Amino acid sequence: MSQGVKVNSRVLDMEYAVRGPIPQRAAEMAAQGRRIIPCNIGNPQALGQPPIGFYRQVLGLLENPASITRERSLRAAGITEALGEDVIDIAAAMLEGSRTGTGAYTESAGFRFIREAVAGFIDSRDDVASDSPNAADPDAILLTDGASGGAVYVLEALISGPKDGILVPIPQYPLYSATITRCGGVLVGYHPDEEQGWALGRKNLEAPLKAAVEDGIEVKAIVVINPGNPTGALLDRQSMGDVVDVAREWGLAIIADEVYQENTYGQEWCSFASLIGDEPAPLFSLHSVSKGFYGECGHRGGYLEVRHAQPVAGTNLDMRDILVKQASVNLCPNTMGQFLVHLMVTGPREGSETHRVFLEERARVLDDLQAKASMIRGYFDQMAGVECFGRTGAMYLFPRLGQLPEGKTDFDYCMALLEETGLVTVNGAGFGQAPGTHHLRIAFLPPFELIEEVMPEWVAFHNGWQG
Amino acid sequence: MSQGVKVNSRVLDMEYAVRGPIPQRAAEMAAQGRRIIPCNIGNPQALGQPPIGFYRQVLGLLENPASITRERSLRAAGITEALGEDVIDIAAAMLEGSRTGTGAYTESAGFRFIREAVAGFIDSRDDVASDSPNAADPDAILLTDGASGGAVYVLEALISGPKDGILVPIPQYPLYSATITRCGGVLVGYHPDEEQGWALGRKNLEAPLKAAVEDGIEVKAIVVINPGNPTGALLDRQSMGDVVDVAREWGLAIIADEVYQENTYGQEWCSFASLIGDEPAPLFSLHSVSKGFYGECGHRGGYLEVRHAQPVAGTNLDMRDILVKQASVNLCPNTMGQFLVHLMVTGPREGSETHRVFLEERARVLDDLQAKASMIRGYFDQMAGVECFGRTGAMYLFPRLGQLPEGKTDFDYCMALLEETGLVTVNGAGFGQAPGTHHLRIAFLPPFELIEEVMPEWVAFHNGWQG
Repeated sequence: MSQGVKVNSRVLDMEYAVRGPIPQRAAEMAAQGRRIIPCNIGNPQALGQPPIGFYRQVLGLLENPASITRERSLRAAGITEALGEDVIDIAAAMLEGSRTGTGAYTESAGFRFIREAVAGFIDSRDDVASDSPNAADPDAILLTDGASGGAVYVLEALISGPKDGILVPIPQYPLYSATITRCGGVLVGYHPDEEQGWALGRKNLEAPLKAAVEDGIEVKAIVVINPGNPTGALLDRQSMGDVVDVAREWGLAIIADEVYQENTYGQEWCSFASLIGDEPAPLFSLHSVSKGFYGECGHRGGYLEVRHAQPVAGTNLDMRDILVKQASVNLCPNTMGQFLVHLMVTGPREGSETHRVFLEERARVLDDLQAKASMIRGYFDQMAGVECFGRTGAMYLFPRLGQLPEGKTDFDYCMALLEETGLVTVNGAGFGQAPGTHHLRIAFLPPFELIEEVMPEWVAFHNGWQG
Repeated sequence: MSQGVKVNSRVLDMEYAVRGPIPQRAAEMAAQGRRIIPCNIGNPQALGQPPIGFYRQVLGLLENPASITRERSLRAAGITEALGEDVIDIAAAMLEGSRTGTGAYTESAGFRFIREAVAGFIDSRDDVASDSPNAADPDAILLTDGASGGAVYVLEALISGPKDGILVPIPQYPLYSATITRCGGVLVGYHPDEEQGWALGRKNLEAPLKAAVEDGIEVKAIVVINPGNPTGALLDRQSMGDVVDVAREWGLAIIADEVYQENTYGQEWCSFASLIGDEPAPLFSLHSVSKGFYGECGHRGGYLEVRHAQPVAGTNLDMRDILVKQASVNLCPNTMGQFLVHLMVTGPREGSETHRVFLEERARVLDDLQAKASMIRGYFDQMAGVECFGRTGAMYLFPRLGQLPEGKTDFDYCMALLEETGLVTVNGAGFGQAPGTHHLRIAFLPPFELIEEVMPEWVAFHNGWQG
């Protein structure tokens, strides 16, 4: 092939707008010294959100076990800069639990003591007794490199070819569309009702299922992202119930992307695990250290919990066995991500000084996020034709842009907005949207001062843009 | 499907013996309190190899930036337990270079300042001036989660379907066979000459290529692992030259798995990058923090360097663009693995006390590994029919077991050896081997005392085993 190497067309076709042409142009502008505000991605620490101190103190000790002894001797010598005793004890206990520390491959599914802690967290979160038949099982939990790792395993296992479909919300997080494309399956879109705050409803779910079946597609699973991405919207309980009913009736597994479960800003949230209870609805739920108030994206920690694991046709295995085998080919998730998952699901000892500071830091991050979201939403009111639906959750707003100038797309809009203001967003088409509508996603993460600076510029841009 | 869910048959068919039934049985035995010596995997720190202190001191500081200021004030106060000034300076410079520290997503290809350091390392290792046309290009380097991450991207891109082949040594590291199976391609095996120290030779490479072409297979790339895995053997220069010649003549890319490049025990080693020079042979070379004298498997750090990136048919892209897009769907490699790659390719300042300790630690690890390999090889002489070929490299020995009892396989042998001695090995069939031969792979990592304890037991087992 003198014309070049033939590359897998499914890999060529993958699209990932969150890191597509708009952020690429932003990188060029940054290299020219221009102001760039990266709101294209939920990456809080890149926009100045400080890490939770307790997490980092423990992680620092885990990397350098000799420092544990040293901290103890500093404390004994009355050196005031020594770390808190509880921090030291927790790090020592984690190293003990791991036996091999940060430098060895772990079990493919991750350290067992951390999977036990995750199970405890799930039970406590969902108010389930640990001896209940609905209690979480450490052997049905896989620690993963971010939540993405787990989602990819599930999709790779479920999709055999072009007649296998996955029901995915439109708009959706493009990890799902990109991975379905790479695996050669079919993305079957369902359309939440934007004007009803992105509520689902049986009809919205069943219409595309029926159409897919008529096309000879076997739909294997439904993806639900709650709180939503890119919409940010929190699902109502009725919508969640509809998902479970439809999944059971149509024989679908539920892939519940719940990585924003802490980003609910005082509103009620419930997990799919607690909702399905002992109904035999196969469930894969995802969580991550990247979001919430932790924002530890770079550490790539997460977990995948499997419930009611499906038996695998033609074998004596179930889906859990398959997932563990997939994980084994990658040897293991990175250890620091695993340890951070442990900290996420445990936290400092209640009543300690460390705990007091931790609660303060957590409250500040979440309060700030909520205030930033409100502030940005407020500016939307000044933009002609812009509307933003749904209860605020996650780290995103997904405003509908109204009518655009003749022949212009939301990609053009976002590119022009970038050139004009340095604000990096992702256009709605990167996530999918109802035909004829135009959106963008903005992560509500910049510092307050920067929001106050750039939002009036955006308002002026919006109201003046001729395309 | 009341019989269970249909799972992707390519995922079902994947095999990964390194974490297969033998280590699973070992885990059961360990749970019963029996002595287990995990030599099935190159996981040095799980067998007591200490980490390099300098690496961990820096990593500890990176996780907790506040500790940098604290260490400086401890030093100023004359507290003797403070870390070395050079350690503190290096950590501070790395944080500065990264701008966002350990907690934010990085560029998809990894921090640029680390890719620049990797390029400098490659040039210095291969004795190439940084202004030479053969100098490494930071934009053609991707930081990855271990070397596995990079290998998977390359194979996923190159394999479109069942008529795409990858030329792979037999025996091989099962990441390659498992990934080729999952991608639906064809593993085209070539057979190095065991009795000639696993030398390659044109004939061994071209015979399977011809057969594949006759079967209508388009062979896209050749995998070479040097030093070898599972064989441990170092390639001779003639074999490497044959690979380059054959690759060029047949239009193959070279996938050079060079993760054991530090595990050469005083013997000469050269990279494929330096060997191809400016010949237009597309090359993907892999390195990792997991092996060498570092043994930091748990941190999942590595890199992939692309040379002479192939243009991609039907597009205006080249292979490097495709790989970066693939990486973007996973957002970024974990930051601690990235920082460890930086430390691997730089190291402490020459002349410092930290450097002196570093050199001592490095020498001790490598000397010990060499001594352990010799010790284990010595015991093979006492085992009837056992022979072990090739110059010692990597962390593995791959002895040929000779005649086994009627009807018995090397799987049976390894399972019986495990039950008898607690030694966990991987049988040759897990890697592939010439028909009629039987092998096992052992990682030469256990502490000396344990080797001295278990090897006589293995000798007795071997000479007495009736199957």
